[in-house]
Amino acid sequence: MKAHVYVTLKRTVLDAQGKTVAQALKGMGHTSIADVRQGKFFEIDIAPGADPGKVREEINEIAREVLANPVIEDYRLDIQE
Amino acid sequence: MKAHVYVTLKRTVLDAQGKTVAQALKGMGHTSIADVRQGKFFEIDIAPGADPGKVREEINEIAREVLANPVIEDYRLDIQE
Repeated sequence: MKAHVYVTLKRTVLDAQGKTVAQALKGMGHTSIADVRQGKFFEIDIAPGADPGKVREEINEIAREVLANPVIEDYRLDIQE
Repeated sequence: MKAHVYVTLKRTVLDAQGKTVAQALKGMGHTSIADVRQGKFFEIDIAPGADPGKVREEINEIAREVLANPVIEDYRLDIQE
């Protein structure tokens, strides 16, 4: 069982890193790029014995309290059996 | 039109950041976590006038040459119409 947690800056927060990448790409002639936002993700292997019913709740708690900063970041979970 | 590029360290490369997160989570009592690998992703907005037929090739080139280091990293594309 695997869980993916995707963390991005909120839309309202300036993403300087993404803006820099977008500018660099435009400067290299990639004119079809309108905007870039950068985020991070975590690929989490769940131990075989874990209770599948509790995994989503636990991963959600981990994402909210450890992996993301909910003040400035959004996160999204994707849990695969 | 949007493209997502996901970049992770290759399986054979030690992911010190992921290992640190995994250790921290285990130390906090999250015993159902077996392993964590960390990566980054880029959410790319494609300009409205871009040729959809060429976008995949262009994003692939950008991922390979700018966003990822193919020596130590793998990348994955996800292009949404």
